[in-house]
Amino acid sequence: MRDLHSIKIAYIGGGSKQWARVFMNDLALAKDISGEIALFDIDVESAERNKKIGERINQSEKAVSKWKYSVYKRIDGALKNADFVVISILPGTFEEMRSDVHAPEKYGIYQPVGDTCGPGAVLRNMRTIPVYEEFAKKIMTYCPDAWVINFTNPMSLCVKTLYDVFPKIKAFGCCHEVFHTQKFLCCVAHEILGIPQPQRNEIYTDVSGINHFTWITEAYYKDINLMSLLPQFIKKYFDSGYYEEGAADKYKTDMFAYANRVKMDMFNRYNVLGAAGDRHLVEFMNNGWYLENPKAVEFWKFRLTTVDFRVKQQKERIEETIAMAEGKKPVTVKKSSEEAVELIKALLGLETRVSNVNMPNKGQMPDYPMGAVVETNCVFSNNYVAPVTAKPLPDGPKALVMRNLINNEVLYEGVKNRDLDMIFESFINQPLCSKLNISDARELFKTMIDNTASYLPEKLRHWA
Amino acid sequence: MRDLHSIKIAYIGGGSKQWARVFMNDLALAKDISGEIALFDIDVESAERNKKIGERINQSEKAVSKWKYSVYKRIDGALKNADFVVISILPGTFEEMRSDVHAPEKYGIYQPVGDTCGPGAVLRNMRTIPVYEEFAKKIMTYCPDAWVINFTNPMSLCVKTLYDVFPKIKAFGCCHEVFHTQKFLCCVAHEILGIPQPQRNEIYTDVSGINHFTWITEAYYKDINLMSLLPQFIKKYFDSGYYEEGAADKYKTDMFAYANRVKMDMFNRYNVLGAAGDRHLVEFMNNGWYLENPKAVEFWKFRLTTVDFRVKQQKERIEETIAMAEGKKPVTVKKSSEEAVELIKALLGLETRVSNVNMPNKGQMPDYPMGAVVETNCVFSNNYVAPVTAKPLPDGPKALVMRNLINNEVLYEGVKNRDLDMIFESFINQPLCSKLNISDARELFKTMIDNTASYLPEKLRHWA
Amino acid sequence: MRDLHSIKIAYIGGGSKQWARVFMNDLALAKDISGEIALFDIDVESAERNKKIGERINQSEKAVSKWKYSVYKRIDGALKNADFVVISILPGTFEEMRSDVHAPEKYGIYQPVGDTCGPGAVLRNMRTIPVYEEFAKKIMTYCPDAWVINFTNPMSLCVKTLYDVFPKIKAFGCCHEVFHTQKFLCCVAHEILGIPQPQRNEIYTDVSGINHFTWITEAYYKDINLMSLLPQFIKKYFDSGYYEEGAADKYKTDMFAYANRVKMDMFNRYNVLGAAGDRHLVEFMNNGWYLENPKAVEFWKFRLTTVDFRVKQQKERIEETIAMAEGKKPVTVKKSSEEAVELIKALLGLETRVSNVNMPNKGQMPDYPMGAVVETNCVFSNNYVAPVTAKPLPDGPKALVMRNLINNEVLYEGVKNRDLDMIFESFINQPLCSKLNISDARELFKTMIDNTASYLPEKLRHWA
Amino acid sequence: MRDLHSIKIAYIGGGSKQWARVFMNDLALAKDISGEIALFDIDVESAERNKKIGERINQSEKAVSKWKYSVYKRIDGALKNADFVVISILPGTFEEMRSDVHAPEKYGIYQPVGDTCGPGAVLRNMRTIPVYEEFAKKIMTYCPDAWVINFTNPMSLCVKTLYDVFPKIKAFGCCHEVFHTQKFLCCVAHEILGIPQPQRNEIYTDVSGINHFTWITEAYYKDINLMSLLPQFIKKYFDSGYYEEGAADKYKTDMFAYANRVKMDMFNRYNVLGAAGDRHLVEFMNNGWYLENPKAVEFWKFRLTTVDFRVKQQKERIEETIAMAEGKKPVTVKKSSEEAVELIKALLGLETRVSNVNMPNKGQMPDYPMGAVVETNCVFSNNYVAPVTAKPLPDGPKALVMRNLINNEVLYEGVKNRDLDMIFESFINQPLCSKLNISDARELFKTMIDNTASYLPEKLRHWA
Repeated sequence: MRDLHSIKIAYIGGGSKQWARVFMNDLALAKDISGEIALFDIDVESAERNKKIGERINQSEKAVSKWKYSVYKRIDGALKNADFVVISILPGTFEEMRSDVHAPEKYGIYQPVGDTCGPGAVLRNMRTIPVYEEFAKKIMTYCPDAWVINFTNPMSLCVKTLYDVFPKIKAFGCCHEVFHTQKFLCCVAHEILGIPQPQRNEIYTDVSGINHFTWITEAYYKDINLMSLLPQFIKKYFDSGYYEEGAADKYKTDMFAYANRVKMDMFNRYNVLGAAGDRHLVEFMNNGWYLENPKAVEFWKFRLTTVDFRVKQQKERIEETIAMAEGKKPVTVKKSSEEAVELIKALLGLETRVSNVNMPNKGQMPDYPMGAVVETNCVFSNNYVAPVTAKPLPDGPKALVMRNLINNEVLYEGVKNRDLDMIFESFINQPLCSKLNISDARELFKTMIDNTASYLPEKLRHWA
Repeated sequence: MRDLHSIKIAYIGGGSKQWARVFMNDLALAKDISGEIALFDIDVESAERNKKIGERINQSEKAVSKWKYSVYKRIDGALKNADFVVISILPGTFEEMRSDVHAPEKYGIYQPVGDTCGPGAVLRNMRTIPVYEEFAKKIMTYCPDAWVINFTNPMSLCVKTLYDVFPKIKAFGCCHEVFHTQKFLCCVAHEILGIPQPQRNEIYTDVSGINHFTWITEAYYKDINLMSLLPQFIKKYFDSGYYEEGAADKYKTDMFAYANRVKMDMFNRYNVLGAAGDRHLVEFMNNGWYLENPKAVEFWKFRLTTVDFRVKQQKERIEETIAMAEGKKPVTVKKSSEEAVELIKALLGLETRVSNVNMPNKGQMPDYPMGAVVETNCVFSNNYVAPVTAKPLPDGPKALVMRNLINNEVLYEGVKNRDLDMIFESFINQPLCSKLNISDARELFKTMIDNTASYLPEKLRHWA
Repeated sequence: MRDLHSIKIAYIGGGSKQWARVFMNDLALAKDISGEIALFDIDVESAERNKKIGERINQSEKAVSKWKYSVYKRIDGALKNADFVVISILPGTFEEMRSDVHAPEKYGIYQPVGDTCGPGAVLRNMRTIPVYEEFAKKIMTYCPDAWVINFTNPMSLCVKTLYDVFPKIKAFGCCHEVFHTQKFLCCVAHEILGIPQPQRNEIYTDVSGINHFTWITEAYYKDINLMSLLPQFIKKYFDSGYYEEGAADKYKTDMFAYANRVKMDMFNRYNVLGAAGDRHLVEFMNNGWYLENPKAVEFWKFRLTTVDFRVKQQKERIEETIAMAEGKKPVTVKKSSEEAVELIKALLGLETRVSNVNMPNKGQMPDYPMGAVVETNCVFSNNYVAPVTAKPLPDGPKALVMRNLINNEVLYEGVKNRDLDMIFESFINQPLCSKLNISDARELFKTMIDNTASYLPEKLRHWA
Repeated sequence: MRDLHSIKIAYIGGGSKQWARVFMNDLALAKDISGEIALFDIDVESAERNKKIGERINQSEKAVSKWKYSVYKRIDGALKNADFVVISILPGTFEEMRSDVHAPEKYGIYQPVGDTCGPGAVLRNMRTIPVYEEFAKKIMTYCPDAWVINFTNPMSLCVKTLYDVFPKIKAFGCCHEVFHTQKFLCCVAHEILGIPQPQRNEIYTDVSGINHFTWITEAYYKDINLMSLLPQFIKKYFDSGYYEEGAADKYKTDMFAYANRVKMDMFNRYNVLGAAGDRHLVEFMNNGWYLENPKAVEFWKFRLTTVDFRVKQQKERIEETIAMAEGKKPVTVKKSSEEAVELIKALLGLETRVSNVNMPNKGQMPDYPMGAVVETNCVFSNNYVAPVTAKPLPDGPKALVMRNLINNEVLYEGVKNRDLDMIFESFINQPLCSKLNISDARELFKTMIDNTASYLPEKLRHWA
């Protein structure tokens, strides 16, 4: 039996400026487990800084669990005999992301995120899938029995790549977007019934869809049908908007905030609840619907996150990281709202937990193609993950999910086979490309390839 | 055993100005069978004229088979004990069609046909499905064992309605669009190989999809792989276009002609062949692709059929009909290229025939929802029809077909439940509505409802 | 929000001599909930006795939760506004069971239980399904939103009947057989690894199959693969046998004990673990395999439970019940190993729990017909149950499960349609009837119908 | 385009004593096609004789089509560039067949044929599959585009092996058993309605199942529902029996005749018609049903074909073959009732034909596992074969078919992986082994392996 105090967790992308800290914090508070965090990043310096921050966290008296932090210069060493592999990377730089997000604007296509669905996501997938092909091979070689937890976007095809290259891999993909919507439902209970706001983990939600375009079809807090409260709630808050993390107009000052007006409008249309931030949801539908132009975005009360902002934010984060690493800024040790560490503990046999993650469809969504990566609840327990069957979506949302899911399948086949013609068919069929004519679509695709060619595999750099 | 010379064929929509004549002609040339043609039409006068024309056909020496023509004023009498029921109707008038086809133009949506897919088709379905609900009930009462052949568009949901209301119905839907594409392939063989042009029934094609958006995935003439000839053919004819029924530019003078440039472009994109006229195919894809504006239509070399033209054409046809009925114009008796009479003969046990028709999915397209109406080959033989399993479509076209098929399912549920909100979700999700924002879509939908309200069921006339 | 101290639990079969007491005990120890237990039984006297016993339990100081016990003379009153319905009945008397179990012995067919599978079970289903048809209608009328928990055997078709008659019912079926096998696996860990024996709820097992013929395909205790320990364990214990509840030869004195030799032999054959008592498992396979004759039963180390024994046991239990009701024997208040109360608490939102229950297949076993009742893990949480997808069985066990599952479907259709010919096809196709020729099978079936005719619906009493 | 007079047909097993002649005859009468028949057989002498017989057929004035006959000593040459490959072999000798058929008799298991299902068939599959693995590889190398027609039994797994080893193979399996049942239905029409007996190809039947255990679910002659005539027919002929090829008691003198009493009894039980000779059908059901002992066989009016008889018959056939080859006996040139040549002509584009053949399930039987080899109607036309969707079987026969189909899948995996334990699970689960206990089953399996070891692959010769 594995010693719970000799766990090895390989962290690919271990130079992360933000998520690494969250994760290290949560691990420091996981009293039953400890071991080694093996950091690997192509930016070695960043990984070294995180190592230092990790060591400072260890010094905190709140840190009930002390971890050994190591930096590996080669991925092989980090992976070797790992029990868990966490992957959280950004393939390419902000300059590539700038093209992903902003190049389409010339054609009237606005993307609040641009990393999952839409023209930007197509390019991001083209850069990411080949990297994940390598990861899968390395994992097969160095730690075939490890549990692999993916955080990288574009989530669906990262996970699909891992399974396609190494079918026996034990991988799943974690995303916190559904959590926010669960919190939103807790707020709804409070606002409508006047009861104390339940905690997210006190309610149960039936979740299905694809990452960032998931849906809650049923939700209960004890015997209260939370879905049945929504019409009244929406009547009250549709105009003003409502944000589960602050004031309805927080989006004015917070680039990542939103007022859930899209989500409420979608509920009015479909009677089920989109379970991701509005900024994500809108990217899976025709851009005429919620992204027609900046004015429409303002009407729906969310923001188009610019890459300039991300660059600035990153700079600040790096500075903060350096300050922490050098001890100029104190580390704070506080449990986050993420669940990755809880899932790790469940897999280690310390509890049984149900949470929504991304895995290949093996029956949990029987109306959709088997093998496509979908997001539903899964049971996590002693060294085991099993997807929970989801309630079927109504036909309206089913049509939207199916369209995007099959687009994704086309895209994956295209990247896998290094076939730009096939990738283009996914590109032009993206809902956010609905308004493009064929020649504009070709021109835009070509431009975006050129802009990011240096991070693409050779065979995906030139399109005839 | 049924007497092959006492067949009763009920013809619903028996006042047809054109198709009735084709059918009467083909029946007159079907030497093995005869009996009664029971005409029913709400326009009794037209039915009476067709009766007279039918009797004139009987007098022709070419008419090897003489049929008794009757006009029924109530559908019940026409259906009673019928062996076959043929349905070919136009629900509403050209004024409704004018709204279907032209109202969306204000929003930049151009429709060459407007009867199957796109905003016009949604309205047409709303008018037609309720009528078919009644037909299904009447057939269940008066001739439950009859074979029912549908020719009315929108094909898919007419057939679906019949099966949904009366599950034991023996119905299928016939459409000649695939035939044209088969002829196109015969031309390809001739043009590329220099061999005499084969007849359509000498080749075999694997057909799948939904009506007017069917695809040929494999095609052979003897051992010649016709699909493999297409790249060379397209290289040669893409610029000029190619029309299987005449000159490539015939579309300039013939409102229904087209140059197959869309079909060729789609083959370049997908490696399978769209199997309907270009005018139909384009309606199933984003309007940016082949219907951006009248100039694009010209580029792709087909026409937007105006309703004014249809009105004029109809007027001429009525005049011609009157002339024929009154004996002022001779009737011509000539076998058409339609197959309905051949299918009737096959069902009567006179031959076994394979032809593409529309039926509920029971495994012929196993990747798509069971019960949705799809178009594939079927075997017709002694009192029996069985769908033939189709080769799976590549993911690209699959994404397109699935999107439209599920849209159709949503539309059907909406009309069945008289639920305008649900219908609207199908409306706004039509590929031809890709460019609309939500408020424009609502406005257009409302306008189109108002325009055609008098032909809609009460509960579908007013949208909040 | 429902008051957790005004829960109404209707108990159909509330005169139970044994299971009622277990349930009342577990409820008395459920500190967070209380309310009314509405007992209904056609044997009113028994129900009255249980009411008295329940009240004595209330008086125990260990009883942290006090329940109000009521006896209803009509099922309607018991069900009215119930939050939960528990059903645990015996349709017919021991005389019917005597025929079920012993009549086939004349033909060399030995049944250790005779209530789930095999000739006896066919008759038992014929008596039970019609009763459940009535239950479903009553529940639809009096408490359509109640959670319905079935304990009655034959489990699969009881649950199927409920869903078939009232599709919106919220029902599942609980059975403890899997629990025993989980305990067996805990023993395996202890015996092979020398570690302290884990508790059943500390391990995770992937469960699939049909009730009493379920299989464990994967089992982990922390990172220990319990399945991988079985070959060594079996090598050691196959000859002697091994019983999770006592000595390997306990079966000699305990009519319900068994030595797991069948289970071990099946593991050797199939590499997955049958997850029910050997007495049940053997009834799903050809009787030549483990039930050839009493000598074989002895070889495999289990017992053929006689109905004489059951009669005697029942008599003792009634006496004990009377003694308790009259206060002559003290009640003991002790948590059982059953999970029904935990599931009730989970449904009330007090915890999230994963347990194996019987529900219609909606994707949890995607290789088997949808809608058939299968047993897999399910997630229980706030007012919600969702089946967990199961790992596919290897082809060998799949063949066995499929055979029995389809037999069950035939049987259900037969009883539903009161069609003895169809029921006979299930009867003769039972694995335990493998050795019968057709005329013996007919004779036996007829005899068994005659023996139990008074408890059969009119239309199932006479077979031509 | 292929020259229809330079067709190359490779005939594997070209030394056949009977079927080769049938095939050569039919080809001689196929006026539109000619070319080379490339005979290959491990018994070269037999192939040489058939070459001579073929040349004598060429000399007949009835032979409208003359073929060139060649004998190849290596399979490679025979296959090279073949357009069609016909395979009809007997793996092993009559001595192996003697063990297959008669060894089980010691255990009360009687097999009228022993080549498809039952203990004998398991062994036959063990000998045959490895040979077909080689055929598939050779075809992949020498003629990957050829159409491969299998006639060898055990049909299902021969065809499965071909597709499993070479997934792009264009193969199907032909069997005439359904034809006989179609003829039987023609007789039924004649007997009950008094009409002239229709020809087999004048009726249409919906066929599904697995080879030799196929079922007709619908049958029409013109508008006459042939299935609806069966109850009256069976009432009349059940006692006497009825044989479509002669007197009801022909079976007394003809080892291969039967009186269709089994088929009629099965219809009474299931309302669908078993579509193979009774001798085959009985092997797919528990041996208590129709094969309890020789007396039961007599009651059901068919025969247990002994291998002694086959040896004698073979000897006579060889003598006849020699006589024909040497010109001592005249060849007769007469169209057989087989359809292989018609299917070849259809594939060459000379007609479109619907016939029942064995192919992997791709939707034609959607309730059964995809990829399993099933027998249904298929459309044959220009270089193309497409399965026709079959009407679902009622649950009773579905249970029987599913059981045998999954048994076959287990068997295939066992042989493919050279895993005797897995093969044994298929063996003991054969319906004809229903009466065996495990130790007898092991003993019998071991004996049968020993008896035929010299024709088994090394790894299948010794069972621990």
